[in-house]
Parts: sequence; structure tokens; C-alpha cells
Amino acid sequence: MNASFKPIRKVAIIGIGITKFGEHWDKGLKDLAIEAGIKAVEDAGISGDEIQLLVGGNMSGGLFAGQEHGSALLADYLGLNPIPAIRTEAACASGGVALRVGYMAIASGMYDFVAVGGVEKMTDVYGPQAMNTLAGAMDFETEAYYGVTFPGIYALIAKRHMHLYKTKQEHLAMVSVKNHEHGARNPFAQYQKRIKVEDVLSSPLVADPLHVLDCSPITDGAATIILTTAENAKKLSDTPVYIIASAQASDTLSLYARNDLTTLSATVHAAREAYRQAKIKASDVDVAEVHDCFTIAEILAYEDLGFIKKGLGWKLIEEGETMIGGRIPVNPSGGLKAKGHPVGATGVAQIVELVKQLRGEAGKRQVDAEIALAHNVGGSGATATVHILSR
Amino acid sequence: MNASFKPIRKVAIIGIGITKFGEHWDKGLKDLAIEAGIKAVEDAGISGDEIQLLVGGNMSGGLFAGQEHGSALLADYLGLNPIPAIRTEAACASGGVALRVGYMAIASGMYDFVAVGGVEKMTDVYGPQAMNTLAGAMDFETEAYYGVTFPGIYALIAKRHMHLYKTKQEHLAMVSVKNHEHGARNPFAQYQKRIKVEDVLSSPLVADPLHVLDCSPITDGAATIILTTAENAKKLSDTPVYIIASAQASDTLSLYARNDLTTLSATVHAAREAYRQAKIKASDVDVAEVHDCFTIAEILAYEDLGFIKKGLGWKLIEEGETMIGGRIPVNPSGGLKAKGHPVGATGVAQIVELVKQLRGEAGKRQVDAEIALAHNVGGSGATATVHILSR
Repeated sequence: MNASFKPIRKVAIIGIGITKFGEHWDKGLKDLAIEAGIKAVEDAGISGDEIQLLVGGNMSGGLFAGQEHGSALLADYLGLNPIPAIRTEAACASGGVALRVGYMAIASGMYDFVAVGGVEKMTDVYGPQAMNTLAGAMDFETEAYYGVTFPGIYALIAKRHMHLYKTKQEHLAMVSVKNHEHGARNPFAQYQKRIKVEDVLSSPLVADPLHVLDCSPITDGAATIILTTAENAKKLSDTPVYIIASAQASDTLSLYARNDLTTLSATVHAAREAYRQAKIKASDVDVAEVHDCFTIAEILAYEDLGFIKKGLGWKLIEEGETMIGGRIPVNPSGGLKAKGHPVGATGVAQIVELVKQLRGEAGKRQVDAEIALAHNVGGSGATATVHILSR
Repeated sequence: MNASFKPIRKVAIIGIGITKFGEHWDKGLKDLAIEAGIKAVEDAGISGDEIQLLVGGNMSGGLFAGQEHGSALLADYLGLNPIPAIRTEAACASGGVALRVGYMAIASGMYDFVAVGGVEKMTDVYGPQAMNTLAGAMDFETEAYYGVTFPGIYALIAKRHMHLYKTKQEHLAMVSVKNHEHGARNPFAQYQKRIKVEDVLSSPLVADPLHVLDCSPITDGAATIILTTAENAKKLSDTPVYIIASAQASDTLSLYARNDLTTLSATVHAAREAYRQAKIKASDVDVAEVHDCFTIAEILAYEDLGFIKKGLGWKLIEEGETMIGGRIPVNPSGGLKAKGHPVGATGVAQIVELVKQLRGEAGKRQVDAEIALAHNVGGSGATATVHILSR
């Protein structure tokens, strides 16, 4: 991966919108996306007519709702016709990838105002079908076909990490406890209740060593951001946030094909590329939203993003460094675990939270931050995106 | 739609690859995509290591094969890790949209070599399930839910066009006859046999007035192109082809919400924008690949692309002007009707054909052309892309 990466125009975020995350029995895919879209346009202080392109991340409208062609559908219901609408998909990194396409659209000089959204409506199918749909993020022929599910995949990773690095079951639980503490301060989170390590350890076992409270939930939700050039942003916004890196990398879909189960190499590559673009080091990051689809995934992210040496991720959580108030707060929104994980929306929702943090609008979750990092993963790490934002 | 559209770098095509289109009982999604990808890289005369980004159009790996996350899967099996991989989806315009994202990636200065592919493996599900999957391109809640299928949708359009403009059943049949004549000269086409107007009219009725031979088939296939900057292309290729316009527009997904059933307004908007970008008129186009998912759709395309006045599309086919050798040859490849329509691959396959035409490599299908136009439609016209190429 030797991308030239000389984006010709600098890109900024001037609007954000998000729905409550949770089980929305009274709302469909369109309702959720429209709510987030309207909020973002209002927040940007522009008129909807100024939007020139819609990019929407959605993992599986097809298997969740029989609905493909989702971005055109949203352009339609948002009254944005005839502007172009593009859907991106990279499993649970569909939102992060949508942001990258929106970024290219502005950087290229082709568009001046772009709406980037993410949405997933997951509760309209019964549990096993949701599992089956999510398994579409694996290599179907070598993994899903044999019946493995994502908790099983991440349980294998966790077992190996525990074996190699002395990571304990309690460390995994502490990630969940932290993210629930943060989620309890987020009015948009699916779970706004505090839990204890004992609660995690005594919750039903899903795939040893992962308990229910180690797993992110099935969630409905949507998020949208409005992008423009840095020049426009300075004129239009009192609190513009700049995207100073947009990186992405790929890895094998199948776990069996990897040299090391305990590293997501796509995260390592994307992070390295992002730090290079932003001209910063990992230690310069003040706050991060990372992809904690399972508690072990947050520990991997600490290590693969360079916040701490490989194998010592458990130290960060044990010593409280990733709590709000710690050295490097991670997932102040509550993360996928407590905020919820509407898969196609997650990558965009992470950006919404970080923009709030950088603007100083995060209320009880506010951290002190100049530089923020978003880390979105597809599947068990076949796709990773890393974006870095600054005030 | 008031896009600034000042792409900062000019984009060129230096490599093309395509599989035979048809029923590939011995090949899966990956096999097809890999075959087209390798051919394109070889044709470009570069090494696979030089590719920095993969963009793949695929309509419904989820519903056709339980496989989402398709672009990362292909990066994996093509040995391209860790480069980024993005899947785009806009129903049957997924390929055209993939090309637009690849175009942005080069124009933005972020990437210098991009592979844009399209693939669909449609024959692994039984017929009704294929219909059901394709119906995901409609607004599920207002159309698919009530049982309408795409032949039914396009039959409504055809009936109305026949009512308003004296278009005859025979005119529709002539489109099929022409495209089969062209397909008979294309070794990659699904149907390489000539048919007569009587054959079309006596073939089973699917949705009045559309007969089986008015409908594009269910097809497996893949196509890939390699993009780079115009500067690189001049150095690397003896026959570079330049993309001089990349436009896209949206319309309502539902037919009921449109003012006029006989115009795809997304095509009208995208074409107008494309001509503006390329600084040409419709009459400057020498050859076109248009989206003839049903024969009526090709007649609409003649009119909506500005090749002839609204309502007179039937004249172009009646007078043989869109045959190879005519004034403006349309679908020299055989089109979706005869070449086949693997939905996510179609938009890229159109480009492969036009590059062959502009290079003078189209064999028995060769036309004399400097300026070529590709027109790709999603659903019944909720998405349309128009690309213009030149030598």
C-alpha cells in the first residue's frame, strides 16, 4: 500500500446528526436515516438544497429488509432528487468507508457539500436471521458456511490473546464496565445503565470466554455528517472540525489465513497510514472512538492503534487510562457495547461523537481534546478505517 | 444539482478485463471477479502491486450468496492486501457508481492506480428468489411488498409509451433483434445467436407487452478496468482512453411518485450534466452502451440521452440508425439483452466494450468512434450514471 495521498482540497465537518440508538419498533430504515439527515443539515446551518451528493453506509439492507438501492431511496425520501446517491458497504465498516468516499468527493474538487450517512435497521428480523446476516461479513465459503458466528470468531481471538499475553477475563469485563459508565452519560446510547465486573462475569456465556455483556447488541440507528471544504467551513461554522487523515486497509476475511490471531493487521496498516497523513504520533491522540464489537476488540484496538505495546492492552483498562478523565479516553460515547451497534451507522456515529467532543458539546462525557481518532472495523478485521480529526 | 465539478486531475483507463457472460455453474463470485481482475491488470501492463485501491460494484452478494463485504473478499483473494477495498451498490447501476468512486479517488490526488470492478453471481439461487432479490432495487414498502416484479414495472412504462407515442410492439422487438445481431459478434456475450422480430413476438409473454425476448437474462459475470491519471496513461499506454465526464442523478424509486412514466428523469439529468462536463452535445456521441434491461428501456434511453426527441425513439430503431454501421450505434456489445446482465458488473462491462471500440479492438463489432457514452441505470431509474470517454 503505497498510496500517493495528496488530497488537493482540505475537508471539514460542519454538521452532525444522530438518532437515539436502540430498538425502534415504530421506525423503519427510512425514518431513522431521515431523522439523522435532517438533524445534520440543521446543525450545519445550511439548506438541504446545498447538498450535492449523498453517500450512505449500510451493511445489509438486502438481508435485513429486502431493500437494496438504499442511498437512492434516502435521496428520494429526503427530497434531494436529482442529486447523486452512493451506497458503500464494507460490513460493519460501511460507515467509515462512506466517510472516505465523501472525503474523496470533496478533495477531488467535484463536490462542495456532501452528506455522509450510515444506517441499519436490524430488529425487523428474528435473532438467528440477524446472526446469519452479520455472518455475511465473513468469507462465506470458509467460515459462515460451517456455522461459526461472530461471537465464536472473537472468542477464538480472545482465547489466543489470553494465552499469549496473560489478559484476564476480568480485563475484558472492565472494558464493558467502562463503556457502560460512558454510555450512562450519553442520552443517545442504547444502554444507559452502569454495570459491574461481576455482572459481566455472571451474565450468560455466549462463546467462551465471551459473555453476553462482552458483546455489542443488535441495534437500530442512523447518523449523518455534512462535509465541505475547509475554506467553506471557516465561513459557515464557528466550530469547524477538520479531517486530517482518512486511511483504510484490508486483511484476509478468514481467521485461518492469518499469521497472528491477536492483531488486526488492517488496523495496524490503516493507523500507520493515518498517522503519516496527519503527521502525528499515536501518543498525540487525545480521544478515540474504537470498534469494540466485543470487549476483546477494544483491547486489540489499544495495541493495534499504537496506544500501548502489543500484549499490554489490559494494562490500559486495568489502570483506568481509557476512562473519561484518563490519559487517553476511549469510547466516551459508550462505544459499540453501550451506545449500540447499528452496523452500517457505526462508523459515522463515531465521527458524530468526536465532533461533539472537539466542539465541547459532549456534556457529562466531555473530555479535553484537540486531536481525535475514529477506528471502524468490518468483520473480524478484513476492513479497517482510521480517520483523524482536529479542531 | 449544482455540483461544482472541477476535478483536479484528469482520469484515464489503461486496462480492461471481462469474463464470458452466461451461466457459470462451475464458478463462484470470487472466481469470476478474479478472472476479470487479472485480465485487466495484464492488459494494463502493470504489476498488481501498483494497484492502490479496489472499488467493486455488486448489487446483492447478500441475497444472492449470503456474502456481503465483497470488495475486501476480492482484495484478499487477488492477493492485494492491505490495500483499501470499497464496495458500492446502487442496484443495477452498482458498476457505474463504482466507476464514479474510482474516478474521484484518482481526481482527488489520493490514489494513482485504482482497479474498478463489477461482479454478480446470479444463478446460485432459484428463479423466484432471483426475482425477489432484484426487487430489492425497488422501494420495498411501496412496490416489491405488493408483489410487482421488474418486468411488470417496465411493462407499465412500455404500455404508457405505446399509448402516448405510437410506439409499436414491433419496435420493441427490433431492439432485441438488433442487440442479438450485435451479440452474435461478441465472443463474451451470453447469447450469440441471431433472432427475428417474429421470434420475439411469438416468445412467451412475461408482462404484457413484454415477451421473454424483450427481457435481459439472469447472468453470471464480471468486468474490471484499471484507472490512472492522464499523465501516467500517456507514459504507460499506446491507446489510453480518457474519461471526460462522470455524472450521476437520482429519481424516485417508485413509479407512482413520478410525473411521467415515459421518461427516466435521472437519465435526463445525468446526461445533461455529462454533456456539460465533456463540453459536447448529444449529437457528438459516436457510439453508446445503454441500459437495455428491457427493450423499452433502450427506446427511453435514446430519448432521455438526447439522441432523438421524446416520443420518437422508435424511429431510430425502425430506421436502423442504432445498428453497427448506423448513424449512432447503440449497444454494439449486444447490450444487456444479448451480452447478458450480471447486475453489479453491467456498468463496468459497458466501459470495457467502449474502450475496445475506442482502441479499435472490437473485431466484427468495430464502429468508427472518437467519443463514446455509457449509460447505466439502477432499478426503474432511481439511479442513472452517464460516463463519456474519448481517445
